[in-house]
Amino acid sequence: MRSFTAWKPPRRHAEELPLNISQIRRLLVDFVREETRNAGFKRGIIGLSGGVDSSVSAFIAAEALGSENVFGVIMPYKTSNPQSQRDAELVANQLEINSEVVEITPMVDPLLKRSKISDPIRAGNVMARERMIVLYDLSSREKALVIGTSNKTEICLGYGTLFGDTACAINPLGDLYKTQVWQLAESLGVPKQIIEKPPSADLWEGQTDEGELGFSYKRVDQLLHQLVDEQKNESELMSMGFDEPFIRKAIGLMKTNEFKRRAPLIAKIS
Amino acid sequence: MRSFTAWKPPRRHAEELPLNISQIRRLLVDFVREETRNAGFKRGIIGLSGGVDSSVSAFIAAEALGSENVFGVIMPYKTSNPQSQRDAELVANQLEINSEVVEITPMVDPLLKRSKISDPIRAGNVMARERMIVLYDLSSREKALVIGTSNKTEICLGYGTLFGDTACAINPLGDLYKTQVWQLAESLGVPKQIIEKPPSADLWEGQTDEGELGFSYKRVDQLLHQLVDEQKNESELMSMGFDEPFIRKAIGLMKTNEFKRRAPLIAKIS
Repeated sequence: MRSFTAWKPPRRHAEELPLNISQIRRLLVDFVREETRNAGFKRGIIGLSGGVDSSVSAFIAAEALGSENVFGVIMPYKTSNPQSQRDAELVANQLEINSEVVEITPMVDPLLKRSKISDPIRAGNVMARERMIVLYDLSSREKALVIGTSNKTEICLGYGTLFGDTACAINPLGDLYKTQVWQLAESLGVPKQIIEKPPSADLWEGQTDEGELGFSYKRVDQLLHQLVDEQKNESELMSMGFDEPFIRKAIGLMKTNEFKRRAPLIAKIS
Repeated sequence: MRSFTAWKPPRRHAEELPLNISQIRRLLVDFVREETRNAGFKRGIIGLSGGVDSSVSAFIAAEALGSENVFGVIMPYKTSNPQSQRDAELVANQLEINSEVVEITPMVDPLLKRSKISDPIRAGNVMARERMIVLYDLSSREKALVIGTSNKTEICLGYGTLFGDTACAINPLGDLYKTQVWQLAESLGVPKQIIEKPPSADLWEGQTDEGELGFSYKRVDQLLHQLVDEQKNESELMSMGFDEPFIRKAIGLMKTNEFKRRAPLIAKIS
């Protein structure tokens, strides 16, 4: 049983991070249109998970490139929540974009079995990376640029799989915190059921981002905004009401996962 | 039949790029030791292809971290040349490092079949990325940092698979041209048969790098050295004796594949 029925998305809240929605929307649409062209493409391809991030990316891409130039790839694993696929298909239908379902189970299971992978983190990483393989392969067939779906909260905390769901050519959402993606989703007309469900990587039964992270997006977005954008230090954050273990945990995640945000380190000899 | 029996590695040649071997070796060993520690690890893991690049990386890593702290992963596909695996095992034996063979065929074939992939480039990318999945998964099991094997020639020309063979945490070879890797290999004691065989990604029967690229490493390394390190322009290069179609081809590859060298482009909203 999934245990998050009481969960409420933190929208329309007085503490919401400010966002000039119409300006941001225009800016992101222009970004996708220009950078797709700069990269030598006129089409984009997006992995549709049925979650709010990939839905918002798809809405932005369809507005930027035209529905006929956006391709959605839906990649369930055998344990994925069937509702995820239905939500992804809902987005594809609403946007009138072409899409394809590629089940990753036949590629994932032989490795899980061979290497006796039972740790859900390791298994989840294999799945996220297999989706990258499928997506990049279809991007080649479709001559379409891979448009990313990682938000700023995930990127800061390193809550994603390196060379997996974080892999893309351009990313319209990377400077928007999760709570800002929710705001944008609403204004774009992303289906309500997608905005209102608890965020989850859906890598195993009952997984939720907030359950796994141990804090809410609302709280951590407020913290990250002060820490990253306003450059506040630990004692300033504490005087603003953030408690010390929470600050330490967020900073710890940022530091531990710093390697996910940087290119491979090359030995300089010259 | 492989058709490159007449091929000779361009070693001990008057036009060789200069390299202070003993200094470089010390520098790369220090780099691997320090950066492995900086990343919070004491062990390293390397995908061993049986080629000269991954062999040199393994020799450097074993010297830096100790043989007991280096793990080699050998990942043949069903069409891989059996000699590649034997050469990889030769390196593991010579260095006395632990290694494991993981055949990627059971994970690769379901996707090739499902998506009817017959284009060898697309198939090769799937294989290279599947190897990344296996390597990163074992890096988690082994608590070992992924040490890369891409040389400067490949990186400049974009001759590699994004999120595939180019994926790593640290890369000791990234600032050494292929012909310099050969020089270093010799001084490290890499088995002669590995140094002397024609370089190949071994993604399909009879593939050689030089056949696919259409020029030799010796020629292109000279060109890249003048172009990248000495910042010579096209007319200067021509007056140095490089012919125009060759210059254009190399510059074309560098530009076309520039995207492989940069992180995902994120829309900045703040």
